[in-house]
Amino acid sequence: MDTPAKPITIGAVLFPGFEILDVYGPLEMFGMLGERARITMLAERPGPVRTLAGPAGLADASLAETGDLDVLLVPGGMGTRREVGNAAFIGELARLCARAGRVASVCTGSALLARAGVLDGRRATSNKRAFAWVRSQGPAVDWVPRARWVEDGRFFTASGVSAGIDMSLGLIASIFGRQASLEIATWAEYEWHEDSGWDPFASLNGLA
Amino acid sequence: MDTPAKPITIGAVLFPGFEILDVYGPLEMFGMLGERARITMLAERPGPVRTLAGPAGLADASLAETGDLDVLLVPGGMGTRREVGNAAFIGELARLCARAGRVASVCTGSALLARAGVLDGRRATSNKRAFAWVRSQGPAVDWVPRARWVEDGRFFTASGVSAGIDMSLGLIASIFGRQASLEIATWAEYEWHEDSGWDPFASLNGLA
Repeated sequence: MDTPAKPITIGAVLFPGFEILDVYGPLEMFGMLGERARITMLAERPGPVRTLAGPAGLADASLAETGDLDVLLVPGGMGTRREVGNAAFIGELARLCARAGRVASVCTGSALLARAGVLDGRRATSNKRAFAWVRSQGPAVDWVPRARWVEDGRFFTASGVSAGIDMSLGLIASIFGRQASLEIATWAEYEWHEDSGWDPFASLNGLA
Repeated sequence: MDTPAKPITIGAVLFPGFEILDVYGPLEMFGMLGERARITMLAERPGPVRTLAGPAGLADASLAETGDLDVLLVPGGMGTRREVGNAAFIGELARLCARAGRVASVCTGSALLARAGVLDGRRATSNKRAFAWVRSQGPAVDWVPRARWVEDGRFFTASGVSAGIDMSLGLIASIFGRQASLEIATWAEYEWHEDSGWDPFASLNGLA
């Protein structure tokens, strides 16, 4: 595996009502790459973006002013219910997806990718409690009910909320090798579910 | 167990160089309490507070203007190395700890609590890779090397980074009952390490 000679660029998308851990779980793991990664927070406009729970994230740059990224990270959350109908936002996502080396979603973030049309004909997964709604956003997507995360080409879609942490370690392994992910998990005192097929939550929610 | 009649107030402390997941892991779990909790982000001054990895959190209020809280959450991160010498910050922490129903720390956040003197004579834990440094910040604390988290009276101290998620579910259980924490873990598709003694990372780092 040829690891990148310069830092990889990671853009994390914020929108009102994003789910906290969908964003910051993966960003903790990417952040532990240190000098090997540069993280930028993106939104329709720079500035504070609120979660439903209260805490706000701060967008450093607008989607429109952002170009090529090595990794685009798209979270879920209740705000996705509104953003699937935000044509300007979905259009920017589609543009960034076309230019990104890898595209990652967490939870209902895959509904946003589905609306952007970039998952058509691909395998993908999502939050288990919102699966029917997500499925309705992308009839041409091959939705996988039982998976911690699904890797299909350059697309990495994770199940609900905390699954994004496991997915991000899988994505890091695809770039920097498995040993890098194992080290990061140990630094974070995190027990990585390395098997992307591990998913006790599918049957808990009557799926698969 | 008498669950609170009104929302519990949670204050999460930010400082430059806080560790991302130390804050947002527990806040995801507290956030899933919905109407049962109100989260406020605190710092020496309101406004953006940067992590080393790049993303900034937004402080809604200053420590000095904050009064009684049901839960005070203190994260760790490389910024603790500077904040242990910030007498004004440590003084505000000590004041808030004295007035908080419960005090929680994640990772090297327990070094800040130790410097505030609030852990003297109590059992506490911390990040396993920084344990010697943390121990040096509180010689009168009964440091526990092997623990996912330690509960001693109203103090909940967690091990490194991701351990805060498990601790926060333990803390939620102490207020709202175990069933509430089990539900939240399932909603977040999170496998809770409910046993606070679970800790494979202590021996990985030559402790215990």
